[in-house]
Amino acid sequence: MPPARSLAQQLASKQREISVAEFFERNRQILGFDNPQRALLTTVKEAVDNALDACEEAQVLPDIAVEIAKEGTDRLKVTVTDNGPGILKKEISNVFGRLLYGSRFHANRQSRGQQGIGISAAVLYAGLTTARPARITSKVEEEEAAHVVELLLDTQKNLPRIVAEDLELWDRPHGTRVELVLKAKYVRGRQSPFEYLRGTAIVNPHAQLVLTEPDGTRVTYERASKDIPPLPKEALPHPHGLELGELAYHLKASRQPTLEQTLTKEFFGVSLRAARELLGTADVARTSPPGGLHGEELERLLAALHAAPLIPPTAESLSPIGPLLIKRGLRNVLGDARPDFFAPPVSRPPRVRGGCPFLVEVGLVYGGALPPDQPVQLLRFANRVPLLFQQGACGITAAVEQVDWRRYGLDQRGGAGLPVGPCLILVHVASTKVPFTSEAKEALAADPEIEKELILAIQAAARHLKTHLSRRARRDYATEKFAIILKILPRLAEKTSQLVDKPIPDLTPVITKIMDVVHVDTTSSTDAVGISLKTEITNYTPRPRVLEVFLEMPAEQFGAVRFSDVPDGIDLELGRAWWTLPRLEPNGRATRSVSFPPKTDVEANDLSWFIAGVDEGHLLGAEPLPGDWDVRLPRAVIEAAQAGREDLPSGEEAEVDYDAAEKSAHVEEEE
Amino acid sequence: MPPARSLAQQLASKQREISVAEFFERNRQILGFDNPQRALLTTVKEAVDNALDACEEAQVLPDIAVEIAKEGTDRLKVTVTDNGPGILKKEISNVFGRLLYGSRFHANRQSRGQQGIGISAAVLYAGLTTARPARITSKVEEEEAAHVVELLLDTQKNLPRIVAEDLELWDRPHGTRVELVLKAKYVRGRQSPFEYLRGTAIVNPHAQLVLTEPDGTRVTYERASKDIPPLPKEALPHPHGLELGELAYHLKASRQPTLEQTLTKEFFGVSLRAARELLGTADVARTSPPGGLHGEELERLLAALHAAPLIPPTAESLSPIGPLLIKRGLRNVLGDARPDFFAPPVSRPPRVRGGCPFLVEVGLVYGGALPPDQPVQLLRFANRVPLLFQQGACGITAAVEQVDWRRYGLDQRGGAGLPVGPCLILVHVASTKVPFTSEAKEALAADPEIEKELILAIQAAARHLKTHLSRRARRDYATEKFAIILKILPRLAEKTSQLVDKPIPDLTPVITKIMDVVHVDTTSSTDAVGISLKTEITNYTPRPRVLEVFLEMPAEQFGAVRFSDVPDGIDLELGRAWWTLPRLEPNGRATRSVSFPPKTDVEANDLSWFIAGVDEGHLLGAEPLPGDWDVRLPRAVIEAAQAGREDLPSGEEAEVDYDAAEKSAHVEEEE
Repeated sequence: MPPARSLAQQLASKQREISVAEFFERNRQILGFDNPQRALLTTVKEAVDNALDACEEAQVLPDIAVEIAKEGTDRLKVTVTDNGPGILKKEISNVFGRLLYGSRFHANRQSRGQQGIGISAAVLYAGLTTARPARITSKVEEEEAAHVVELLLDTQKNLPRIVAEDLELWDRPHGTRVELVLKAKYVRGRQSPFEYLRGTAIVNPHAQLVLTEPDGTRVTYERASKDIPPLPKEALPHPHGLELGELAYHLKASRQPTLEQTLTKEFFGVSLRAARELLGTADVARTSPPGGLHGEELERLLAALHAAPLIPPTAESLSPIGPLLIKRGLRNVLGDARPDFFAPPVSRPPRVRGGCPFLVEVGLVYGGALPPDQPVQLLRFANRVPLLFQQGACGITAAVEQVDWRRYGLDQRGGAGLPVGPCLILVHVASTKVPFTSEAKEALAADPEIEKELILAIQAAARHLKTHLSRRARRDYATEKFAIILKILPRLAEKTSQLVDKPIPDLTPVITKIMDVVHVDTTSSTDAVGISLKTEITNYTPRPRVLEVFLEMPAEQFGAVRFSDVPDGIDLELGRAWWTLPRLEPNGRATRSVSFPPKTDVEANDLSWFIAGVDEGHLLGAEPLPGDWDVRLPRAVIEAAQAGREDLPSGEEAEVDYDAAEKSAHVEEEE
Repeated sequence: MPPARSLAQQLASKQREISVAEFFERNRQILGFDNPQRALLTTVKEAVDNALDACEEAQVLPDIAVEIAKEGTDRLKVTVTDNGPGILKKEISNVFGRLLYGSRFHANRQSRGQQGIGISAAVLYAGLTTARPARITSKVEEEEAAHVVELLLDTQKNLPRIVAEDLELWDRPHGTRVELVLKAKYVRGRQSPFEYLRGTAIVNPHAQLVLTEPDGTRVTYERASKDIPPLPKEALPHPHGLELGELAYHLKASRQPTLEQTLTKEFFGVSLRAARELLGTADVARTSPPGGLHGEELERLLAALHAAPLIPPTAESLSPIGPLLIKRGLRNVLGDARPDFFAPPVSRPPRVRGGCPFLVEVGLVYGGALPPDQPVQLLRFANRVPLLFQQGACGITAAVEQVDWRRYGLDQRGGAGLPVGPCLILVHVASTKVPFTSEAKEALAADPEIEKELILAIQAAARHLKTHLSRRARRDYATEKFAIILKILPRLAEKTSQLVDKPIPDLTPVITKIMDVVHVDTTSSTDAVGISLKTEITNYTPRPRVLEVFLEMPAEQFGAVRFSDVPDGIDLELGRAWWTLPRLEPNGRATRSVSFPPKTDVEANDLSWFIAGVDEGHLLGAEPLPGDWDVRLPRAVIEAAQAGREDLPSGEEAEVDYDAAEKSAHVEEEE
């Protein structure tokens, strides 16, 4: 061993500060630049995410063009142009030429970019691999010309190095263009700019995106909605989930004179009453100056804040996609697959984690041309950005895998892992602070609170799937049973009649008695007049029925719906309409139908039909009234149902009684 | 839309620099601090990794104590004490209180810590969750007393804030102790400090590690080797895999007067001749000043460097574990499972990636009490540090999953994914720059070059497994066949003899004729005298054989081996010994055996026996000579083998001919 003196000093002499740019240059895989294909995707993604954020801040409908062109053997030139508000000249160099610099890190609201790393990392990578400067053109509305800046990122200093500056006329009121030449590889397909833009279009239907590929192919994702999502508001920090150090920081930064005022004005969800109560619990004086708190006082205050029943966070700092646009997005992307079933999208209420609100949305689609023998397709999104890499390392995947899908009708080996089936699941996590596993923002870290919400949302969507599959199975069963009975009974009757030399009797009442069900059949049709949904209720039981028919549909569609028969009641808030069928004789049939004008955002499976007045065992093809609806049924319906239940035919009575059946047979066609 | 002037300016006014500590405080999941259990593991890991690195630099046998104690309801105190060289007082605050500060980032050699983030991140997290300063005690050999520093990390500035300083007597010549109080949770089992230290002990058998758990339980991992791994040397950058920007940086930083001298003296693997040739190819003047190169000249030089056939990197900047210690480590950890088979560990030669050398090592163990119906256990290591999280996101896992294990005798659904079987695979990637997916250093990024090496190494280990399994299967088959023949033939003979009233004939030659194989049976025994391996060769063919017996074993064991019979030849370099058996009569038997003194690092399956002189179809229980050995056999062996092959008994000749068989029966016992 060498003498320790020289060694400890020797080691000390090697201690150095590491520039953050140097760090990321050496560890560029962390930023998503570890191979030419991924580097291209990351570059496109960072530029487009910035453009979308800027347009959202300016409340402009985004028009974004991405052009990828060949530049020598292993290089590509990426140009991303937007119609955002533009960047002031003095900020251009910092925004593009410096890591950890930006406007969105400190803003406590949902945005795509949050770290101030992305686009500068692309500039760093371009410089590293081709030594070519980034060229940025930006015009703000109040200036006549656009500023053009060419720059490199100096990794030793983490500062921009400007290579050239110029002014240029640009025939648009405002916008920004980034041009980068980098070592990159273009591949269409999985994990490509093509797939990224497709995913982006799904969750940003207000954006118009145009991709020009190296071979000149132009792909356009048309704007599907002209509603600009409202800019999320900056939120105050919510005390639930704050760590001690964060609380101390916020208190020190407070401009309020007292602790009580700090709590009510600089934190979210703390009413005056709550502040007083919890300061009492913590045994801290209400009038203390906020910055003076430390040690055990601070710890007691934090414990009281965590324990207090505060107002939950609101969604105003978040920008969820919303059920309507989730469905529209899915319909866009699944144009060719023609799925049987779009589950009503699930949007969970906002929750808080580490002082930041978040919420989870889930869409689910089943059937059609989706592959039945493959694991389900999972589309992951965070803050309206598709996540294309690291599916295996993502908290979203972990949540999907933890659900026991066998309970919801999908195959799943051992009740864990990705289920198998013709199914696509879209999951969106929105937060003011998304916990990514790395700076490349490709996967969510495992977080117990987000996981809990994810599982709840996924299960809710899965329950819809289960209902759909059960309904389909029941309808299949009923149809099959009908088919058999209608085929066999007449033959049996014919043969028997021949044997005993009597005429063939009318079998309708017999069929009725064998089936002993109220049968509901719902069909839908789409034509130039719009979408029509018809439900047909047949009383195949041997006694008259008084039934109540309920229709449930998205409340926002009540403006568009046309009823074939005026409902006996409507609940606009809950989205329900109902009819009473006063007396449906054995073998009698009634229909109710609704229609919507073309292009209404409604699917057949958005509407549910429920029947009251017959118990579940004698109802086929529709659901009985859900137990939690707590609806007051007309007395006649209740009585008729009870009567029906009391004298159900026993096994013996069910024996075919031709005469009796013939007597009670009486077809009543309503309408 | 608000007027653009105010908007662009408004946006500009929000642009700010982000402190790197602030960034990581907000994104602490990236550093491995996203929940109390993981935070504890990361803290222990960073402190122990630093201690091991420091001991290695000082070439001290590490003695490391980890103590985890309860401190209130949800807090733990972590104390890690080492006997490393200590840290000079002036450096303590920077090393522990500043992110991106350290001595190993710029050193181009293998070390556990490389980023200058780890332990400061633990200090940051401790301060954030408990507001308690870290307490560091450090003593260097040349000073009488230890320095004690209490500090917090100021996240706004990313600088240490010293809370207290003191001197303390410490009865050890040198060492460092870190004490941290943090929000944390102790769980034994998966992904715990317990598992981390166990893994660390496997790949650092020269370290003594003691863990004291919160309940007072003390776990000691004894030192299993007194050999301190040599300190890897700092290497010059290798030109293969350098990016343009990196080349430009190295050229600018050069102190050599000419480009030619820069290439030969400041890069690895460039001889004077190579430098001249490639400068010619690149059309750049040999005498140009290195810093003056840019643009196309620089690009041409890079292309020439990449294309030049340079000397590959050496392993001197790396610290592989080595086959011997891999096996010892596995034997340690698998004490109870008593596996049947330890594959000879595979250590691939170093390769280069992005200018940095790396190498891959693989160990594989099969059978015993390892669970037969579970996915194989995978122990991942990078630079002698166990990786416990993110298995699914790791390039090592991806490589294991890509191998078609069905070809090597393990179950694997669809030929992809983790195989199932009683098997444990250890994989170690060593590099001067390991591409981790995030700063938490839990998984390797997908990298085509590392992946290629991983797959080659895993396949090599898998081939050993395959050989083992085939051998076992063949032996089982032969044993079974023998058992049946030895049981049935005598009964048949007895019955027949009774029927015809003749004496029972000697059946040995008949058995020989039916079997028609050379049978090799290898047994091993371990006792006080050491380990003995005996191979028994029996000629159950109906003609005499001239055979050549080859023994292959690790070359380093040749010093220890004792032969029962002097070999007819030895190749020390290839680790082979061989004997010629001049004439082995039908039913004749020969044995050869070797033994090793106690505690030699050798297992029965380190030794392979091969037989030449009989074709594969007539050899049971051993392998024929591998085709790629290219060994010159004695003429007698070749001739005998050819003779044997030419007149193999046909189906008819194989009919039992009692007389002939009796005549040729003649047991010759060698030795």
